[in-house]
Amino acid sequence: MTLRVAVFGENRHEKVDPKVQEIYPEGMHTVIADGLRSLLAADGVEAEVRIALLDDIEESLSEEALQSTDVLTWWGHMAHDDVPDEIAERVARRVHEGMGLIPLHSAHYSKPFRRLLGTTCNLLWRNEGEEERVWTVNGSHPIARGVPHPIVIPAQEMYGEMFDIPAPDELVFISSFAGGEVFRSGCVFHRGKGKMFYFSPGDQEYPVYRQPEIQRVLANAVLWARPEDREAAPVKIANAPRDWFREGARTAEGEEITRVI
Amino acid sequence: MTLRVAVFGENRHEKVDPKVQEIYPEGMHTVIADGLRSLLAADGVEAEVRIALLDDIEESLSEEALQSTDVLTWWGHMAHDDVPDEIAERVARRVHEGMGLIPLHSAHYSKPFRRLLGTTCNLLWRNEGEEERVWTVNGSHPIARGVPHPIVIPAQEMYGEMFDIPAPDELVFISSFAGGEVFRSGCVFHRGKGKMFYFSPGDQEYPVYRQPEIQRVLANAVLWARPEDREAAPVKIANAPRDWFREGARTAEGEEITRVI
Amino acid sequence: MTLRVAVFGENRHEKVDPKVQEIYPEGMHTVIADGLRSLLAADGVEAEVRIALLDDIEESLSEEALQSTDVLTWWGHMAHDDVPDEIAERVARRVHEGMGLIPLHSAHYSKPFRRLLGTTCNLLWRNEGEEERVWTVNGSHPIARGVPHPIVIPAQEMYGEMFDIPAPDELVFISSFAGGEVFRSGCVFHRGKGKMFYFSPGDQEYPVYRQPEIQRVLANAVLWARPEDREAAPVKIANAPRDWFREGARTAEGEEITRVI
Amino acid sequence: MTLRVAVFGENRHEKVDPKVQEIYPEGMHTVIADGLRSLLAADGVEAEVRIALLDDIEESLSEEALQSTDVLTWWGHMAHDDVPDEIAERVARRVHEGMGLIPLHSAHYSKPFRRLLGTTCNLLWRNEGEEERVWTVNGSHPIARGVPHPIVIPAQEMYGEMFDIPAPDELVFISSFAGGEVFRSGCVFHRGKGKMFYFSPGDQEYPVYRQPEIQRVLANAVLWARPEDREAAPVKIANAPRDWFREGARTAEGEEITRVI
Repeated sequence: MTLRVAVFGENRHEKVDPKVQEIYPEGMHTVIADGLRSLLAADGVEAEVRIALLDDIEESLSEEALQSTDVLTWWGHMAHDDVPDEIAERVARRVHEGMGLIPLHSAHYSKPFRRLLGTTCNLLWRNEGEEERVWTVNGSHPIARGVPHPIVIPAQEMYGEMFDIPAPDELVFISSFAGGEVFRSGCVFHRGKGKMFYFSPGDQEYPVYRQPEIQRVLANAVLWARPEDREAAPVKIANAPRDWFREGARTAEGEEITRVI
Repeated sequence: MTLRVAVFGENRHEKVDPKVQEIYPEGMHTVIADGLRSLLAADGVEAEVRIALLDDIEESLSEEALQSTDVLTWWGHMAHDDVPDEIAERVARRVHEGMGLIPLHSAHYSKPFRRLLGTTCNLLWRNEGEEERVWTVNGSHPIARGVPHPIVIPAQEMYGEMFDIPAPDELVFISSFAGGEVFRSGCVFHRGKGKMFYFSPGDQEYPVYRQPEIQRVLANAVLWARPEDREAAPVKIANAPRDWFREGARTAEGEEITRVI
Repeated sequence: MTLRVAVFGENRHEKVDPKVQEIYPEGMHTVIADGLRSLLAADGVEAEVRIALLDDIEESLSEEALQSTDVLTWWGHMAHDDVPDEIAERVARRVHEGMGLIPLHSAHYSKPFRRLLGTTCNLLWRNEGEEERVWTVNGSHPIARGVPHPIVIPAQEMYGEMFDIPAPDELVFISSFAGGEVFRSGCVFHRGKGKMFYFSPGDQEYPVYRQPEIQRVLANAVLWARPEDREAAPVKIANAPRDWFREGARTAEGEEITRVI
Repeated sequence: MTLRVAVFGENRHEKVDPKVQEIYPEGMHTVIADGLRSLLAADGVEAEVRIALLDDIEESLSEEALQSTDVLTWWGHMAHDDVPDEIAERVARRVHEGMGLIPLHSAHYSKPFRRLLGTTCNLLWRNEGEEERVWTVNGSHPIARGVPHPIVIPAQEMYGEMFDIPAPDELVFISSFAGGEVFRSGCVFHRGKGKMFYFSPGDQEYPVYRQPEIQRVLANAVLWARPEDREAAPVKIANAPRDWFREGARTAEGEEITRVI
């Protein structure tokens, strides 16, 4: 079955900041999407990768559009507040239903991420173009497939601990920075039926998404986050009469329980 | 230092439902608070246990009142929506700052719990007064101190899986019910600097909070959830200049960083 | 790439116990292996499923044989002690190198399982042919694909908490029994580069492995446990000179570091 | 109740290496023990801190001595193999029974630690006296009480990822080193009824255990690791007849079950 990926890009810095325009003239989203297309194809995975922008968010992340999205990557920074609450809520619900979500870098402060984690998502930061090294700390995780240990990013914005997130369900990467800080840079969370992977490398001022190792991580993450073969609906609340699971599931109101999970 | 506990009770069923009035004429909150007072005293812990009701929520959970609360227990059911969003948000922030939170039974659907977990918190339920057995599955957890294995509750509302929560940071209790369902009935979560313990026994129609073993669990939980010795403020976001941690911490704006965590 | 599965069976009860002979005249291992073959084929997975018995363990779990095994399922009960320590150690090392391990039922007491977990693996038990219900408690886990909620096993040996294992990395299933006990019946552990899934249903006195839902879980688990695409060797210990990760990795002794993980 | 702490020291480097003798003329164990005594006293905790050496291990870690030990810290390096297997096994069993264990630095390769974790415990290392910074990544953990963020250690041996351990139950500290590596330097594990905290700072060639912040961590860890109020025995294996938990617990053999956990 075709894997349906949407790459959400805020696409604001690219419009207003000459430095960013120079690095990403086609927009970060294009580079991310192209990397996914090429690596998923190389993996033999049939995938459709579309782009969704803040400017077209009402259509590109409409109820219908999200219903036909398996995995959504999310990059946002200066315009988090321009994402309508209703759409953030819709994204969260789709994660509950099984959609994968890959928040990138400054999306630690995006509405869907904070909504799904429940913490402040605060952190330390410094933008001085420091070397970042991304170390694998999980020996058997598919998201770390085929990447060097460490991945070296010549220049990046520093994100440092204390990163105010719930303890990740699985910790895949830890980064160090030239200035000495560390960061849990690759974190797995599960919410409802959906899988999430937060990956911190990738500021708009550095060509991080052009690095093949980073593209490899993103493609691995998208593959890993695809929904399991289940009904695309949140876990159910139901009034379950005694022995419902023996006799054909019906709620107390008589509605047939065709599924619980 | 005195442990300052607030017992939040919705106190609605007690007003309108004769069956509940019979079981809890003084209100569930009173029974919970009395149990805490007596067991914490027996443990040699200096504690002040106050009651906060939905009817006085603007005062009892005011900013000031919460600032002087170390641990908050929360029981609500039919009137979750009557809790103002602003107060739910305030409770969540206080958890980020370090306050302990003990959501009880139907508080799985309360605003603060859902806000802090990020999932639907859906579950199966059936109210037929079934036996519940609460099994300890964590050999070294302080919340399970001094309770039998299992705790037997003669009659309770059934709460069953799939319970749509993030995987708990620590799973302390699993319940089974006469009808065959199971439930993760004692779950630890950390959010920010705050500790949370969700405990499912305790429907309004059964005298569960009068059981000494249940009171023991609540007292253990309150003790465990007290804030660690840290500044009562959320984890900080800060622009941290290079070497800030060597030279005296200052943000890029020159503000002294007196703490990060 | 062909998935190479070995189904280890102790095959002792089948020889000496008429009751078991009646249920599993061809041996439990045969039923398990046939189920895997048929479901993996139905999933479109190219797999070779071989049988390894205690009687031929020196060959069937030889160093060479294990080197060409991707996932090993393990059923043992009355003859745990007849497994040579050296072979248990070899299995543990292969898990460290990436081989998947699926210990079944009474293998909670097998040498490799205890070696890899580090705890006593004690539990409660009772063999009275009680109904077991296997509830999914993880909304997004591939091992729970396509199974009803709950799986009902008409008669089984009871395994109950407290099960003395480390907290699982992921909890997939919790069982209840007619007698009221609960059990963490589907548990994920990671050790080194290897993935483990303990699944408790399946006593020799009941035709549990003939149930299609149980076979589905086993096939799911085998697929999930296959090694990631990494060198089949344990995580390395190495004396790493400064900047080794920049200049071509060499140990202090001058040996080239071709991998760390 | 008096907290009974044993500080195990290998005390070999101190005998043969002039550099170590200069830093720790009284032995590392003495410095560790003195730090604990003084900080626990300052915390108002009644504690007895005794020293156990490899040279007297048959007495100092005898069955009797361990039975009256609540928390054991462990430092070893060059002489891991001189610890008798039987004593390593005894320590592991005492952890199963509830004793706290605090393996320090090179004790990642000690017999009890590897026995209890089940992995190789391999890692990268380099001894060039690099700066280490120990960052707190858990906002509510008592082991991080009162320590700066980060703790800066001017010179230390580097321990780097990939550290081949099971994912810790709680991750408290992550270190970075001047050379760029990172390490999960403060890790919580539970095994049976016992709590373990691995803490990596502290090589014999640097006066790390003289740093007040490091002493603070050790005292916090010892306090945290004290056994909960339970019978000092491993979780039980028992044949539990139906309804045992109602009628007075007896095994199938008629033995009274006075406890399960």
